[in-house]
Amino acid sequence: MILNLFFVLGVLWVYSNIIEGSVETMNRFKELGKKIFFCTNNSTKTRTELLEKAVFLGFSIEEDSIISTAHSAAAYLKNRNFNKKVYVIGTTGITRELDSVGIDHTPVGPDVMEGTLQQYLSQHFKPEENIGAVLIGFDEHFSFPKMTKAASYLSDPDCLFIATNTDERFPMPNLVIPGTGSFVRAIQTCAEREPLVIGKPNPGICEWLIKRNVINPARTLMIGDRCNTDVLLGYNCGFQTLLVGTGIHHLNDVAEWQSSTDPELKKLIPDVYLPKLGDLLQFM
Amino acid sequence: MILNLFFVLGVLWVYSNIIEGSVETMNRFKELGKKIFFCTNNSTKTRTELLEKAVFLGFSIEEDSIISTAHSAAAYLKNRNFNKKVYVIGTTGITRELDSVGIDHTPVGPDVMEGTLQQYLSQHFKPEENIGAVLIGFDEHFSFPKMTKAASYLSDPDCLFIATNTDERFPMPNLVIPGTGSFVRAIQTCAEREPLVIGKPNPGICEWLIKRNVINPARTLMIGDRCNTDVLLGYNCGFQTLLVGTGIHHLNDVAEWQSSTDPELKKLIPDVYLPKLGDLLQFM
Repeated sequence: MILNLFFVLGVLWVYSNIIEGSVETMNRFKELGKKIFFCTNNSTKTRTELLEKAVFLGFSIEEDSIISTAHSAAAYLKNRNFNKKVYVIGTTGITRELDSVGIDHTPVGPDVMEGTLQQYLSQHFKPEENIGAVLIGFDEHFSFPKMTKAASYLSDPDCLFIATNTDERFPMPNLVIPGTGSFVRAIQTCAEREPLVIGKPNPGICEWLIKRNVINPARTLMIGDRCNTDVLLGYNCGFQTLLVGTGIHHLNDVAEWQSSTDPELKKLIPDVYLPKLGDLLQFM
Repeated sequence: MILNLFFVLGVLWVYSNIIEGSVETMNRFKELGKKIFFCTNNSTKTRTELLEKAVFLGFSIEEDSIISTAHSAAAYLKNRNFNKKVYVIGTTGITRELDSVGIDHTPVGPDVMEGTLQQYLSQHFKPEENIGAVLIGFDEHFSFPKMTKAASYLSDPDCLFIATNTDERFPMPNLVIPGTGSFVRAIQTCAEREPLVIGKPNPGICEWLIKRNVINPARTLMIGDRCNTDVLLGYNCGFQTLLVGTGIHHLNDVAEWQSSTDPELKKLIPDVYLPKLGDLLQFM
């Protein structure tokens, strides 16, 4: 019997729209006494801000049950007794979490190209002192100057290289929003280094729950909408996995991986599929 | 005996500084009657502009002997009878070459984020009509809006995806300048598509010279400073290869590949190494 549930936030709501039936399903799980966690690769909000949004949308959750990449990245640095400055490519979701654990960081927001390349490099490029980590999350102000700074800081082998996540993109009806993964690949390429990825599918984001016996993996269900993060996290942790079709991956993707011989693609196949989370209600 | 020489421009000069002995060496090759070509992945200048720079620095060369990615990308589209509009991430090096073959394109320069992400997507993101190709070269104004547009255009499977080159970066004494390859990886990730790469190490950039018997590969020497583009092009074309140590790769990189068992890394090992091009003079 499933005792613990990991909900990816994207299966509950998209932007400010609740996915039909998700509030009722989650509340029903709560009534049944299940232990519930919320796990998101979204680095643009602090845990407090995510909680406020969830409560506003009608979900009854607690801050401690939220596992977020911005919070986890800050906690990772704090646990290492990091005492230098973090160069942040991201938003206030990250910088507020760093502030809350007393870690110094650069400001976020626009950093646009000034003058020609020659002028920029000779006059405007002013690296900060004491940078000990480059931390990359979602940043709609991603730019060439930010890439130049990140790659330059990372040429010091002692500078940590951390990515909140590597989600590739968010396809919308008429456009594609680049995901953090596309910024990370850019920096990886010009820095010629591999980052530590904090978020799903890295089991590090939740293995402390297993180590401290808060959850039993065999009795835990991961409910997600992106297989290379959510289902793969479940695979990596020994959870059962449920894919819902309201987000990134769909049954046709699963069919493709089923017909492949690549063992890496086999890891992306969920145990169960449902068109949407609310379809679970009828079984409960 | 070597009859034909391919010079990578970076072995002759860096920015506006002639590398010691390179003018004399090239002129000596000319006196000896060798057929000389100049091959560059730099997409920021047209062939005419590259010629002007070479002549200004004292090299005696002809425009037809210059093989450049901006020119080759425009030629590629022209040969396909491309008659839509090109979305360009790059500089006037590309747009002027497109103009010269009568291909329509978007303008280059800054395209910075306006407002919040929500505001940008709902108010400011205005995709152009009739885009039939996304062409990426070096662009110091690379930005999130450019990534969003490129990935959105590329969601049409009929839209061509072309990269001038994938050079990762240009390390300088106190900083690292991101290369076109880092922009390309970013777009590849959020577009979930692979580009056609025009430049080195794609043999397509010079195989017409072989097909038309202008050069005999076995009697051709490639002289370069970046092994994963220059030496690999030589390998791909059957040229002999000379690495000079005035640029990206050095003898310690070669030693690393020599001790590796990866056949892909073996392809990066040059036939000959010299600290700088001018060191050839004493043998001539």
